[in-house]
Parts: sequence; C-alpha cells; structure tokens
Amino acid sequence: MNIKGIAASNGIAIAKAFKLIEPELTVVKSTIADVEAEINLYKEALVKTTEELQKIKVKAAQNLSEEEAAVFDAHINMANDPELLSQTTDKIKAESVNASYAFDEVSTMFITMFESMDNEYFRERAADIKDIKKRILAHLLGVKVNDPSTIDEQVVIIAEDLTPSDTAQLDRNFVKGFATNIGGRTSHSAIMARSLEIPAVVGTKTILEDVKDGDMIILDGLEGNVIINPSADQVSHYEEVAKAYEAQKAEWAKLKNEKTVSKDGQHVELAANIGTPNDVEGVLGNGGEAVGLYRTEFLYMGRDNFPTEEEQFEAYKAVLEAMGEKPVVVRTLDIGGDKELPYLHLPKEMNPFLGYRAVRLCLDDTDLFRTQLRALLRASAYGKLRIMFPMIATLNEFRAAKALLLEEKAKLVSEGVTVSDEIEVGMMVEIPSAAVLADQFAKEVDFFSIGTNDLIQYTMAADRMNEKVSYLYQPYNPSILRLVKMVIDAAHKEGKWTGMCGEMAGDQTAIPLLLGLGLDEFSMSATSILPARSLISKLSKAEMAELAAEALNKSTVEEVIELVENIQK
Amino acid sequence: MNIKGIAASNGIAIAKAFKLIEPELTVVKSTIADVEAEINLYKEALVKTTEELQKIKVKAAQNLSEEEAAVFDAHINMANDPELLSQTTDKIKAESVNASYAFDEVSTMFITMFESMDNEYFRERAADIKDIKKRILAHLLGVKVNDPSTIDEQVVIIAEDLTPSDTAQLDRNFVKGFATNIGGRTSHSAIMARSLEIPAVVGTKTILEDVKDGDMIILDGLEGNVIINPSADQVSHYEEVAKAYEAQKAEWAKLKNEKTVSKDGQHVELAANIGTPNDVEGVLGNGGEAVGLYRTEFLYMGRDNFPTEEEQFEAYKAVLEAMGEKPVVVRTLDIGGDKELPYLHLPKEMNPFLGYRAVRLCLDDTDLFRTQLRALLRASAYGKLRIMFPMIATLNEFRAAKALLLEEKAKLVSEGVTVSDEIEVGMMVEIPSAAVLADQFAKEVDFFSIGTNDLIQYTMAADRMNEKVSYLYQPYNPSILRLVKMVIDAAHKEGKWTGMCGEMAGDQTAIPLLLGLGLDEFSMSATSILPARSLISKLSKAEMAELAAEALNKSTVEEVIELVENIQK
Repeated sequence: MNIKGIAASNGIAIAKAFKLIEPELTVVKSTIADVEAEINLYKEALVKTTEELQKIKVKAAQNLSEEEAAVFDAHINMANDPELLSQTTDKIKAESVNASYAFDEVSTMFITMFESMDNEYFRERAADIKDIKKRILAHLLGVKVNDPSTIDEQVVIIAEDLTPSDTAQLDRNFVKGFATNIGGRTSHSAIMARSLEIPAVVGTKTILEDVKDGDMIILDGLEGNVIINPSADQVSHYEEVAKAYEAQKAEWAKLKNEKTVSKDGQHVELAANIGTPNDVEGVLGNGGEAVGLYRTEFLYMGRDNFPTEEEQFEAYKAVLEAMGEKPVVVRTLDIGGDKELPYLHLPKEMNPFLGYRAVRLCLDDTDLFRTQLRALLRASAYGKLRIMFPMIATLNEFRAAKALLLEEKAKLVSEGVTVSDEIEVGMMVEIPSAAVLADQFAKEVDFFSIGTNDLIQYTMAADRMNEKVSYLYQPYNPSILRLVKMVIDAAHKEGKWTGMCGEMAGDQTAIPLLLGLGLDEFSMSATSILPARSLISKLSKAEMAELAAEALNKSTVEEVIELVENIQK
Repeated sequence: MNIKGIAASNGIAIAKAFKLIEPELTVVKSTIADVEAEINLYKEALVKTTEELQKIKVKAAQNLSEEEAAVFDAHINMANDPELLSQTTDKIKAESVNASYAFDEVSTMFITMFESMDNEYFRERAADIKDIKKRILAHLLGVKVNDPSTIDEQVVIIAEDLTPSDTAQLDRNFVKGFATNIGGRTSHSAIMARSLEIPAVVGTKTILEDVKDGDMIILDGLEGNVIINPSADQVSHYEEVAKAYEAQKAEWAKLKNEKTVSKDGQHVELAANIGTPNDVEGVLGNGGEAVGLYRTEFLYMGRDNFPTEEEQFEAYKAVLEAMGEKPVVVRTLDIGGDKELPYLHLPKEMNPFLGYRAVRLCLDDTDLFRTQLRALLRASAYGKLRIMFPMIATLNEFRAAKALLLEEKAKLVSEGVTVSDEIEVGMMVEIPSAAVLADQFAKEVDFFSIGTNDLIQYTMAADRMNEKVSYLYQPYNPSILRLVKMVIDAAHKEGKWTGMCGEMAGDQTAIPLLLGLGLDEFSMSATSILPARSLISKLSKAEMAELAAEALNKSTVEEVIELVENIQK
C-alpha cells in the first residue's frame, strides 16, 4: 500500500513501524480502606515519573540544545510540586478515594485554573501539567505509554503529529524516520526532522489509521512516499535509492570547504539561518559561508522578562567570534504575529499577522529596541556584523530604525566603547509595499534580505498556517518571482546586494530560478547548504537567467514548476 | 479650544453640545414587603421601554432602510420575552427582593449564557439583551438616559462612539452633526454620517472629556476641526465657510444629469457602491452613471439560512431594472474575514483577513455559489449586468469561477431561460499577487475593479481595523499607486477597462492621481459622486498624468500628499 504525503526531510528509511498513540487513561472512582497505602502508591508513581523524565532529559541533551532540553527540568519540578502533592494526599485522606481519582481531580482543577488565566505564561504551565498528568496517571494505572525514549530497535515512527517533547526523545540510533498525519514543510516536526537529519514525510492524512504496529515501512523522504509492507522488489529498489542518496551525500560533503560557484563561474553566497549561538557549529560543519539570518527572538522567549543588554551582548559576541571572518546578519527583534512574549503584555489582535509586531513595536517601545541595538553595536567589534530590520513597510520606518542605531552608536563612541565602522545596515523585504518600492529603499539600505515566508503570505493574502488556504502558499507563483526580481534589480542598480532568508532559498526547485534572477545570497537551514552548493555548481547562471525570464511571463504556478522540471530532466 | 480629529463627513455645524454618555445604573439589593407592587413596578418599566422603543423605531424608519429599522422590533420582542419576565417575577417572589435587583441578576445570567456560546447568532442576542437591559433598568431606577431620540433642539452630539442603535435615532432636523473620541474614516459611524449627509469629526480622542453639555460647538467636517466655545469672530468665519459649502453643494447639484468629463474633454464613469436595492434611489438622485459595486452579502446577513435562488433573483432584478440602461457591477458573495454568517458554521481562524473567505469559499462550496450565479444569470435579462469575483489571488481561481458561471448559463439556456449574452465577467483586484500579475489576468477578464481597502491592507501588511497599525493604511503610498498603475496599464493593453470600488475612489486627494493614472471607472458612496464630478471637471487629465508620473517616483506617502496639495493650491 502506497501513501502520499509531503516530503519534509530528505533520505530513505526502511524499518518496522512504531505507532506513537495517546494512551487510554480511564480513571474510575473507588473507595479505599488503607489510606496510607494509597498515598504511597501515589508517591511511587511520582518517583517513577521523575526517573523517567530524567532519562528523557539526558537523551534530549544529546540531540538538542540546552534550552530545548531544559523543558524537562520544568516537567520534573511540576511533577514534584508541593501544592499538587498536598492537595492530592489531602483528597485521598479526606474522601478515602483511590490515588488515580484524587490526582486526576486535583490536576484537572489546576489545568482548568491555569488555562482560564488570560496569560501566556500560565497557559504554558497548564500544558506542562497536562504532560506530567499523563505520565503520572499511566504509572498509577499501570498503562504502558508508548514512549519514544523506550525504543531499542530500528523503527519508523508513525504518529498523528510529533510534539517538541516527542522529538526531543528521538534516539537517532533507533529512529530511522517518521511519518505523520498532519503538518507541512514548515511545521515544527518537519523543521526538527531536517535539523536531526532523519527522513520524514508529513501531512499523509491517514497513515496512523493505515499502519499496524510492526508493519514493514519504506519511508521516502525525498519524494514524500510511504510504502506499507512493501514487496521484495520495492525493498531492493529503495535500497538502491538509499545507496544513491548516501553517495550523493558523500559527494556533497566534499564541497564543504569550497566556494559556491555556478557552472559558468559566477559566485553566490550560501548562508545559514540560526536561532542560538549553539547553531553556529552546524553552520560551519555544513560549509556555510555566512549566517544569513540570526533570529534574535529566541533570546527573548521562554523566560519571564527581557534579556539584559549584557546577556544579549554575550550571545551576539559568541556568534560573531565563532563565525570569524564570515559575516553574520542579525535580525532585530521580530516578536508579535505568531510569536508571543507573555511579559510584553500585548493586546489580543484580530489578525496578528497584520498587526503590531517586529519593527512596528520596536519603534514604539524604543527602550526595548535601544537595548538590543547597543548590545549589537558593542558586539560588532568581534566580527563582521550586518544588522537588518524586520517588517519594514515604509521608508520612514527604515529611516527611524537606522536613526536610533546611529544615536546609540554615537553614545557608545562618546563613552569610549569600540564599535565597528563597517556594520552593514539592511532590511527584510517581506511586505509587498517594500518590494514594489524597492528602488526607493535601495538608495538608503546597504542590503536587502527577502523573507519569503511572510512575503508570500501577504502577496497571496493567505495565512500559511491556515490549512483551508495553504494551497495559496505558492513560492513559485509568477507574482512572487516578479517581486523578487524587482528587489534584486533595484539593489543591483544602486550597487547593493540582495539575499533571501525564507524557506524558498534552500528549495531545489526555487534555486535555479533565484540564481537566474540574480540573487546574491541564499540563507537556509544549515543542512540544505551542501545540496544547494552541489546543485548550483551544475547550473549555468546565464542559462538560468533565460529560464527565469520565461518564468516571469507564465500565468500560473503550475506552468512555472513544469518549466523548471523540464530543465532538470 | 480647538480639537483636531478625522474629517469623516463634509459640512459645517454650529450648535450646542449634547453629550451622549452611558448612564450610571447602580443596582442595590433590598428586601421588599409588597411583592405584587414590586412586580407591577417591573411590568410598568417594560411598558415604558416598549413605548420608547416603538417611538425610536418610527423615527428610525424615516432615516434608515427597513432592514436597519427592524433591529428595534427585535429589541421590543426581547424586552417582552416571556422567559425573562417569568424568571424575574419568580425571583422577586421567591426571594422578596426589589425588581431592579431581580431583573439585573436574571438579565445578566441570560447575557453570560448567550455570550459563552460559540455562535455568532447567540452573541448578537446577548448584545440585544444588553441594550434593553440598560433601558429597563433606567426606568426601574428612575435614571434619565440621554437618548438621542429625545433631542428637540439643534445640537451637535458628542460621544465616545456612536452605535448603530444611536445613529438610527438621530433626527436630522435637530442633530446637526457629531464628534466622537474614537473611529476612523471607514468606521461605522463615519459611513452613517456620510449616508445621512450630516457633518462629522471622529477620532478626536478627548472630545467627550473636553466638552461640557451645552457648550457652543463649531464642527468642521471639511477639515476635521472642532472648536469649543468659539469667539464671535470664529463663528462668523465659519458661517462664511458654511455658506460657501452650501453654494458649492448647489453647484454640485447642477451636475446631476451631466456626464463626468475632465477639463481636457476626457470622459470617466462615476459609479456608486450599494448594499441593497433600496440604495438605488440614492445612486440616481446623486447622478450616478452606474453601480460599480453591489455588495451581495447583505442578502445573506441577518438571517438564519441562505437566501433562495428566487429571493436573490428578485433582489438582483430589482437593482438592474431600476438602473435601466446604466450598468450594474455585482460582486459575488464576499463572506468570511470580518463578515461572518452564523449559519455557515465556519471555523474560527487565527487571521481571518488572510483566511477562508469570498471566492475561496465559493469555489469550495459550489452549491452555494451556483445558486447565486443562477440568480444573477436569470436577472441579466433585466438590465446591463457585470459580474465580478472577489479575492482572486491566482488565475486558476478566476478560471474556475468563470467555468462555473458558464456551466450554469448553459444549463439555464437549455432550460429555455433567457440569459443576456452581454454580461461582462471581471474580478476584484484586492490581493497584491493579482495586481503584480495583472497583465496575465487581463487576457482573460472583461474588466478589473480595484478594491483598495483590502489591497492596501495586504500590501502594507496592516489590519486596517487595528488601531496600533492603522497609520500604515496609506492609500497614497507610492507602492499602492504603482500597483494601481500596473492594473490599469495591463487592462488598457488588452483593450479592457479598470474601475475602483474602495474608499479611495471617492477621495478628493486620490482623484487627481487616479485620473492621471488612467482609471476608467470610480465607484464610491453615492453622496461623493457630485463633488467628484465637479473636481474632475476642473482637472486636465493630461496634466494629472504628469502629476501621477511624479508621484510614482516619490519615496513616501508624505511626499505624495505634498505634491497633490501643491497642485490644488
């Protein structure tokens, strides 16, 4: 049986299915005689849960960053919360009821209370309690939770979706890949799969229903196929495909220390998108020539208040030093939209993607913005810094942001602090107005970086997170290509350069078009860099310019895809 | 004292201030001895409330359409709801409490219950109960509600904002204008003011605090100024301004039966936006040459299920017949976004403006769409019909919508129904992708109509309803003008025409630019037509083309406004 899904992470896996299903935890109320024994049952469940979480945490720390692993400390603390303990034991004593019932009642009350608060921090705590509630109840009821951390043979995981907690527990020695019912190329689980370098197929709609535990699975993350209980012929065919893919990866690895040069000798810069200083290792390991997007909002997230200037300075300095002579494009705070900061207390918005976010907020709350700018300016002495402002819609916004930067620079210089004189100051082009008016912006910026994720959703007026309209998220739509061309041409006319830091920059179908349109810098997931370098080395930029010119005159996205596919054949 | 606000409706008013403030209705619980007397007090309050609502309804019917006045029938029914009555009287009896307390408790419970339902219909009922609760409690407590329907001398109303219920009660013989703290040019109260043809200034932020009841007010709806307790000089100055404005209106009235021709002899079409067949009278009365936008969603709103094909046919036929030889552009259903249909049961969306709406929904639920298309096709025999599809992002969507139209036409013809062979089929351009790719669309459409309200909000990535980012709603931003030009040029190259049906088409600052860009049809509020015709008659299209060319090369909206203002001096 063949199931078609969305290819979310490259590679081939052939292994048995391991279904990750929510356990059935049915709680029944009963009267008990021995209250002390019941309380001890509860305490034992807490001990087992804590041990289990500690094991997961150790495993997570091997695969993930410290910040990502730290979520399990929060879960351990929550499981052993004294308030939860005392209320549950009190209930067992007062009502002579069984531990699972008492704990279920108390934890549900906590969850309801936290969820009803209009505060992101407490809603996250509610999610934590739900997670540990499941584990503790499973121990109390003796139900086995199909925990990815317990896997000790090679498997392909089959699930509705994978949560961050699930992915943190995946052991790459055993988990050869995964397939899910929901999700798209930019969903959390897809991004994690690419970062872990395991194949994945998402958005299959029915895989969880179609597969039985232990079925043999071929997972084709290259094309987005899943084959259930394949024939011997299919297995040997895919073993060949896997071998060819491994050979290709080996060939890619040879390109690690090479420049990125097209067949006709034109150089472009391949850069990586990062979120924390820890990610730099992966950038260098995959031959990145630059950091094309450092998302600073991770510094602000998962905490209770703003990071200080000093904390920010240390993070920026760490990235700049680690990259050495290679440039680093830092995007100033891009919060709001789908990224909330609980301690910023922003009002709920009807359309957050069209709302008060990023530079709009920073130009309003200038203290917040100035702190970040000062940290960046101080860090500029330690490497090759490029600063860019997100969500610029009008030239006045760019001017205002740049003026604040120059003010803070003048202050630091007068305080005797060393600030680089070679910082490039640019902007994201992710709002249609900026693309359409790029010739005017180009006179004042040092560079553009096109943010395709947002540019596409605004240009098509379609929320990329909304499944009902996700068919309109069309990176190769001729209207998008035309806007990209406007930006690149405008920059070149003023002697400036244009990069791209959306998903599209690392996409194998988009790369020929972008090369042909004259894009100077491609910033992508670190793991996409070597395949991109390999592809570009086989393409003639002059020929791709002809291809791109043809694509600009197509009327639909289907015609553009056909055009690119014909070239690649 | 001078207060600056947003000019929302033209004209000058000089009169005393009448502050419309929410009454203070403090309810105290007390024990009563005579239960029957207390119940009678409550019943008397109901009678008074009903009488009051009936008076308001009669007044509303003079100023507003039947549909708008019908809201007061709903309020009368709600005030006399048997459930509300029996629960309140039961509570008075059972607890020996005073009527105001009992009614407050019962009505609050109903409101909370209705509000908690995840259903637009019941939430509207909650709003109805809130309205009548205020009236009934005021009678029970003997508090005078500052009711606009009680005004019997000439006044300028001063309020936080005006609700539909407030505006419905305005008697144009006494209410000379209004000024509010909140709102913008496209808010409900501003649109109502223009439709009632009374001057209004909105968004003053502080007027309600700055004015005392009875202060003398000069309301300058032309420039957006409010003067509190003016000097004699100021009064005589504004009496002159008012006189000049009246003279101008008289001059405009002479243009009613004229064509719209620029100073250098170029004709453009001035059309009106309408919502119901009742609006046609205003279109013809103001010299409209066409209906440029018939918003059919009003047929679908304020009811419990879809309008039948027959109901729709009657409405479309009524408009087409009333307009005679003059063309009528009907927009197919544009629901979703900020316009909900409770009976359609659409899921809540994170970003409804970027969501499942208009043609996206119609191409999915084709039964709904086919019914409307059949009604339109049948009505086409009665006038000059132009059909346009809203929210077209890709050419495939236009093709799919047009294919359904042709299918239904073929069916009707085979059934022997008369269908016009001269229906023009066009589309709204309100999504940036459609503007950027207009040359491709122009080959397949009969016309474009630019919907600036949405086009601006997507191009600037700013929700026009969100006050925090409303400064980015910039109709004259050079990027918007460039998109408008792309659309007009693309249409002309294929021998097609381009209209505009957003707020911008009737804007006196935009008109010179739009004329210069070559716009063929301007569709606006009916009351804006004669001023627009007068303005265009004084402008040379050739000169405006030069002005527009200059505007396209400006870098900010401020520079464009300055350019237009210089020409107008």
